Amino acid sequence: MGFAKVDHHRHIRQGLPEVIFCPGKTAEQIISIFDSQAKKGHNVLATRAEKEVYQALVDTGRYDKLKYYDLSKTILLEQEKPASSKTAIPIVTAGTADLPVATEAQATCEAMRQKTELIYDVGVAGLHRLFDKVKQLQSANVVVVVAGMEGALASVVGGLVSCPVVAVPTSVGYGANFGGIAALLTMLNSCAAGVTVVNIDNGFSAGVSASLINRKAEGK
Amino acid sequence: MGFAKVDHHRHIRQGLPEVIFCPGKTAEQIISIFDSQAKKGHNVLATRAEKEVYQALVDTGRYDKLKYYDLSKTILLEQEKPASSKTAIPIVTAGTADLPVATEAQATCEAMRQKTELIYDVGVAGLHRLFDKVKQLQSANVVVVVAGMEGALASVVGGLVSCPVVAVPTSVGYGANFGGIAALLTMLNSCAAGVTVVNIDNGFSAGVSASLINRKAEGK
Amino acid sequence: MGFAKVDHHRHIRQGLPEVIFCPGKTAEQIISIFDSQAKKGHNVLATRAEKEVYQALVDTGRYDKLKYYDLSKTILLEQEKPASSKTAIPIVTAGTADLPVATEAQATCEAMRQKTELIYDVGVAGLHRLFDKVKQLQSANVVVVVAGMEGALASVVGGLVSCPVVAVPTSVGYGANFGGIAALLTMLNSCAAGVTVVNIDNGFSAGVSASLINRKAEGK
Amino acid sequence: MGFAKVDHHRHIRQGLPEVIFCPGKTAEQIISIFDSQAKKGHNVLATRAEKEVYQALVDTGRYDKLKYYDLSKTILLEQEKPASSKTAIPIVTAGTADLPVATEAQATCEAMRQKTELIYDVGVAGLHRLFDKVKQLQSANVVVVVAGMEGALASVVGGLVSCPVVAVPTSVGYGANFGGIAALLTMLNSCAAGVTVVNIDNGFSAGVSASLINRKAEGK
Amino acid sequence: MGFAKVDHHRHIRQGLPEVIFCPGKTAEQIISIFDSQAKKGHNVLATRAEKEVYQALVDTGRYDKLKYYDLSKTILLEQEKPASSKTAIPIVTAGTADLPVATEAQATCEAMRQKTELIYDVGVAGLHRLFDKVKQLQSANVVVVVAGMEGALASVVGGLVSCPVVAVPTSVGYGANFGGIAALLTMLNSCAAGVTVVNIDNGFSAGVSASLINRKAEGK
Amino acid sequence: MGFAKVDHHRHIRQGLPEVIFCPGKTAEQIISIFDSQAKKGHNVLATRAEKEVYQALVDTGRYDKLKYYDLSKTILLEQEKPASSKTAIPIVTAGTADLPVATEAQATCEAMRQKTELIYDVGVAGLHRLFDKVKQLQSANVVVVVAGMEGALASVVGGLVSCPVVAVPTSVGYGANFGGIAALLTMLNSCAAGVTVVNIDNGFSAGVSASLINRKAEGK
Amino acid sequence: MGFAKVDHHRHIRQGLPEVIFCPGKTAEQIISIFDSQAKKGHNVLATRAEKEVYQALVDTGRYDKLKYYDLSKTILLEQEKPASSKTAIPIVTAGTADLPVATEAQATCEAMRQKTELIYDVGVAGLHRLFDKVKQLQSANVVVVVAGMEGALASVVGGLVSCPVVAVPTSVGYGANFGGIAALLTMLNSCAAGVTVVNIDNGFSAGVSASLINRKAEGK
Amino acid sequence: MGFAKVDHHRHIRQGLPEVIFCPGKTAEQIISIFDSQAKKGHNVLATRAEKEVYQALVDTGRYDKLKYYDLSKTILLEQEKPASSKTAIPIVTAGTADLPVATEAQATCEAMRQKTELIYDVGVAGLHRLFDKVKQLQSANVVVVVAGMEGALASVVGGLVSCPVVAVPTSVGYGANFGGIAALLTMLNSCAAGVTVVNIDNGFSAGVSASLINRKAEGK
Repeated sequence: MGFAKVDHHRHIRQGLPEVIFCPGKTAEQIISIFDSQAKKGHNVLATRAEKEVYQALVDTGRYDKLKYYDLSKTILLEQEKPASSKTAIPIVTAGTADLPVATEAQATCEAMRQKTELIYDVGVAGLHRLFDKVKQLQSANVVVVVAGMEGALASVVGGLVSCPVVAVPTSVGYGANFGGIAALLTMLNSCAAGVTVVNIDNGFSAGVSASLINRKAEGK
Repeated sequence: MGFAKVDHHRHIRQGLPEVIFCPGKTAEQIISIFDSQAKKGHNVLATRAEKEVYQALVDTGRYDKLKYYDLSKTILLEQEKPASSKTAIPIVTAGTADLPVATEAQATCEAMRQKTELIYDVGVAGLHRLFDKVKQLQSANVVVVVAGMEGALASVVGGLVSCPVVAVPTSVGYGANFGGIAALLTMLNSCAAGVTVVNIDNGFSAGVSASLINRKAEGK
Repeated sequence: MGFAKVDHHRHIRQGLPEVIFCPGKTAEQIISIFDSQAKKGHNVLATRAEKEVYQALVDTGRYDKLKYYDLSKTILLEQEKPASSKTAIPIVTAGTADLPVATEAQATCEAMRQKTELIYDVGVAGLHRLFDKVKQLQSANVVVVVAGMEGALASVVGGLVSCPVVAVPTSVGYGANFGGIAALLTMLNSCAAGVTVVNIDNGFSAGVSASLINRKAEGK
Repeated sequence: MGFAKVDHHRHIRQGLPEVIFCPGKTAEQIISIFDSQAKKGHNVLATRAEKEVYQALVDTGRYDKLKYYDLSKTILLEQEKPASSKTAIPIVTAGTADLPVATEAQATCEAMRQKTELIYDVGVAGLHRLFDKVKQLQSANVVVVVAGMEGALASVVGGLVSCPVVAVPTSVGYGANFGGIAALLTMLNSCAAGVTVVNIDNGFSAGVSASLINRKAEGK
Repeated sequence: MGFAKVDHHRHIRQGLPEVIFCPGKTAEQIISIFDSQAKKGHNVLATRAEKEVYQALVDTGRYDKLKYYDLSKTILLEQEKPASSKTAIPIVTAGTADLPVATEAQATCEAMRQKTELIYDVGVAGLHRLFDKVKQLQSANVVVVVAGMEGALASVVGGLVSCPVVAVPTSVGYGANFGGIAALLTMLNSCAAGVTVVNIDNGFSAGVSASLINRKAEGK
Repeated sequence: MGFAKVDHHRHIRQGLPEVIFCPGKTAEQIISIFDSQAKKGHNVLATRAEKEVYQALVDTGRYDKLKYYDLSKTILLEQEKPASSKTAIPIVTAGTADLPVATEAQATCEAMRQKTELIYDVGVAGLHRLFDKVKQLQSANVVVVVAGMEGALASVVGGLVSCPVVAVPTSVGYGANFGGIAALLTMLNSCAAGVTVVNIDNGFSAGVSASLINRKAEGK
Repeated sequence: MGFAKVDHHRHIRQGLPEVIFCPGKTAEQIISIFDSQAKKGHNVLATRAEKEVYQALVDTGRYDKLKYYDLSKTILLEQEKPASSKTAIPIVTAGTADLPVATEAQATCEAMRQKTELIYDVGVAGLHRLFDKVKQLQSANVVVVVAGMEGALASVVGGLVSCPVVAVPTSVGYGANFGGIAALLTMLNSCAAGVTVVNIDNGFSAGVSASLINRKAEGK
Repeated sequence: MGFAKVDHHRHIRQGLPEVIFCPGKTAEQIISIFDSQAKKGHNVLATRAEKEVYQALVDTGRYDKLKYYDLSKTILLEQEKPASSKTAIPIVTAGTADLPVATEAQATCEAMRQKTELIYDVGVAGLHRLFDKVKQLQSANVVVVVAGMEGALASVVGGLVSCPVVAVPTSVGYGANFGGIAALLTMLNSCAAGVTVVNIDNGFSAGVSASLINRKAEGK
């Protein structure tokens, strides 16, 4: 592959899937990298991939376990056994607009063979919907909270559970949200202990961190 | 008063008290301004006044209806009839650290002859305490929410009531709260409709706005 | 509606219209949500909707009380009785460039059944035009001021009236206005008491807040 | 003067006074520089000078035409003929808190032998006071506007006159005024043509610019 | 003209041309406004106008004194006598990339009937080219300096002349220039006295201010 | 305790110690709160407490298991059994200047009965020192990295381990580190997966999060 | 060339190539400038040039020593003898995404007749790859480090070598990297002495500085 | 030394002096570290050291080659042979206010045994003074430019020389210079090629980088 070495920016320590960050790469480049990664036998995750890329991969006929997450534009090749964690990781989000980031986190967890449970439409302006889910949240080993606009959901969830919370600010919103900075600051300033934060819109990073915690909690 | 005209920066339309913003003025200047304002017969409010200034005013022997709010350092001279609104304005705050700003709002409401009710220690990380107060909040004409750190309380309260909410971000917090900007952004980005915002730590402005609304709601 | 739950981010407490925030949704999704919302019998408001979406709704033949606000791209379905407030809410704006935000506020007020009066072309660099309107402003229960560039209009209006002022900074301007931040800061720092602020370009939020105040003032 | 060359940072082209920027210099250093500057026979201006420095200069007995501006902490040694411009430069300011900056501008104008007229207490929340001064403003060659908080005064004045306006934002205010940035942005975004801006609190620079314009207008 | 009142945002005090700020307006709207403005008999200036708009105006056949400035996209209708000032206003710029802003300033000056002289390619990294022009600069009543990147040119020019300098930061540059903020800050912090600043890329405002000064200097 | 309710801002879900955030409270207030918290029988943690406060607590004679962390100014009352986790939590820091924050994290972990191991003086400019510790790091369940200046240490550690990393930016540094923002951004942008971030200087929050993860990993 | 003088913004002192910064210029303009520059007999460098421009230059048939760097979009005309430095300048970069900037630096060095060696895929999350290159780095006279995301690579390299390091932050990354500011701040705050920084994405500037240093080190 | 390991944050690769960054350390700690560093026989540099610390070191009687730089508060123990470079490094600065940073750079160069030449009072508003020094600058291997306020000096010097320029922004200035950010941005955006930048006020880092370059240029 003369044109480019495999992107190791988000590379892979033991137990992580092979990962390809697609923006800025041509379909040909992505497929070429994908092929070389797939040979290693691990799960392969391609993030922020346009649907055409997914289709092109399908059209190669080389992969029959390909999965595409429309909202987050994630491609997952599951070559390892499917998600087998005992406990699911709740991924909580306030609005449908946060779903792309939430499903990137979900796909990442699945690539790391962790079960997930997507809980959405539970914003702080309608708390009763969140309260219906309290039990699920309180039995988890780790919770991922994805929220844009004012990001207050992370604090509220953090106040309800006693496990670690991984918070993902999203760039959803307008006016003075500054592409997610408002939510980022809210989460960093959370008055609920046990909340840690990843970068804006970085569902991948939240998925990795939550999976690592869930694995540890299940003794792996 | 050769040395300085009365500070009209935060001056006075009909129905407002006379107001003196004290920082940067000497005790002598404040007292001199206070005297001239008091003569008009209205309530007089001096904000951010050190206790020594209050004591000096007491020592003049000229005022026997002086009140000092320790936390917010506000002096109130009540020359008009006391707060007579039918409905109290709830002033809600998350932590004790927000009390200085909350009580500045409270003093301002009282100077405008509005009753208030201070509800504190109801942060979003312990929502059950807030829920005990829902009835009071829902019967109000307007609610003031004072919150630092991540400022999420405004959204949560906004989701519980159907009256206007005036939100005051405070500079309480540390690290990336940037002197209140984190809370300010949170409140501006609130996903709860009906929330408007005043400047960081500006309890006075919140008190004026809430009082004007409460008056209108009581037909004045 | 498998593809998406209704967006509750800007949802609805009693007395508010059903609201759909359109950006990021396909025409099909918007219509589907619109249909389900309309069934509840309340007014339905769709903000930031392209004209094609409005046309598609018209073409369904299901709605004959649809109204489209060109400038703000707002769709309003009036299923309740029309605006019936006794007092109109003045919506004041400096330049024609601020009209999209001003009319979003206007549509929102109407969806909440409040009468409005749009006063524009009254920038601070030509104050005589504003002064022609002083009477109207002084008889209101609440005034909405929409201003970009330097946002000074909120302070000037605030100095003329004794009712609450809801200020909306807009992203109109260029150079160091930073997408509305200049106007936002101006309004937060207003030296006129009684001014509260909503997020940049958020005519919807201003409309809700002003409507809630006007209702309270009319004893509802 | 081994310890330090004369500060030329704000130095001197023809027609300007000798200038000493005092912060960070000891009284001894300032006096020594002052002495060497005074020998040239021009006016000497020392900005941001503590009163002790002024007193020490008086105590030398070497200067009998020393003037001290308390509010701005400016020392002026008038060795040239006094201000002799035909037209006075109006220096307009909203509140007493802006006076230190306004008087620095005033002292600078006087050092450049320009007459000035200080107009204060004319904030935008009380426009009638400004309107009383319109005639004076409209007969000027240049107007200096000094304003903190939201800085709207520059736009309003700019809308009333047809001469150039030099605007000085001040760091007066609190909360999200960010040490004068709110006022700075307001002024840069002024919708009134003919307004130019100097740095925050920089009365000296405004004074120089206004004096240069006034001189040109009087044919010098 | 039902669709829109004439834009008064950058409106017109005596001696200024009629001005139309074009962005966000359709060609039809611009022509309609242009027609109504032209009737008053003054010069008409349309800024940031696409060439098609100019062509459409030409095609109306109504105007034979139309001029189009390609770089700045400014339309000028000269109905008054042409620029007749005795002294030209030098407009100095560092690189060709700053020419669009410089020519907007130039067009504005001409609309105000002031002669100009464009001096470009005199950046601080090649000072000899600037020094060739020193005489021209020193005989001016006011100098406009337009500079992007680091904006140092304003200080250098300010150090060479004894008249007022109006500095315009431009958004030219890349990396951490932040759309002109680097140049803006440089100019605000200029160590050369007599420099005032307008907003980023605002050649129009610089042109107005410089013209007002030049007029005053020529006794008008 | 009339003067103040106990500060619940950083309050306590099951398994957390009682916590008192001391800044802004008088010694009397802290002791009074401390007494009431201690009665519950749990560990009590007082953060950012001046040594005088610790001494005053000792002087009451009521507590014999008090511990004071000089660098972080943390008081710990250990009423529960001492740290009993099987695995220690490595707390890694680059320089001695980061120790105050690191030891706040350490005290918090101990208050939550987790063993810790402080590894310091392992900055990225001297990587050999870090590499001596790789084994310890790789056998941990979670690692805390505390780093100021450019904060690169979190990425480097994240690249060496396969467990979650909790990163704490500190305000150590000068020039353009902006009170820790440089380190915060570095950590949020870490190219090593599995790194999550808490607020600047917030050792307490890092300690809580790391303890929760370690507990989960040990099956509690 | 009436339409534009040659762009001297990034002009040329002795020993530098002729340089054309292409953005904002038409192909015709670039070719015309290129022709005039090429006549001087030096190397000519055109940065940020679209491939069509390169092709158009080839199609003129006037130049047979043209080279195009695809990733950085740089055109180099080598009219002088090829790179002849004894020592190569290592240009180190973390990921493939940084290659455009790295190759702009490389092309610039070559235009200044310095040999280079591109070392990539050596991010701090996989340090073993960097360590394979330590010898090469330690024998250099100067090292260029190009890094986006968190930019930590500059510190790590700075800790391994004893020659000057020129660091280039890139705008690679997402979320709170703010178009390269995160990397810029990291590099400015580097704890490794000997690191200096150029502007975001400015491979050209890094190439010039490194070439100047390498030349000096080789006694030229 | 139980209390603290030696600060390695700014530690030492071959050829650098031992360095102690003093802020935040007690006099006792500094002396203890100093003693241990001095034993190694190299030069020792203590930056930002109060004069009392220097005096205490003198009073130990252990060091007779101690030197104190008053302005920058730097202590230098010269145990190696004195500065022996053939070429001096010019350290250029605009005003006396920049001298503390300039002399920190100077002391660092001397600790690295490089000769220096301090050229000050050559700001861009008085270029003739700079031009007197052009010869000295043009014969150097590297030039250090230290400038606050608008930082334009780096560009001007960069345009005059053909060697690398290391630029140090300083926090000198007021208003919108933001603690040196204005100068930092100016320097990063310099239109003169060959300029690289270190952190605000970081004379130490500039001294190290310049010394490394000078050494290389002299073949070491």
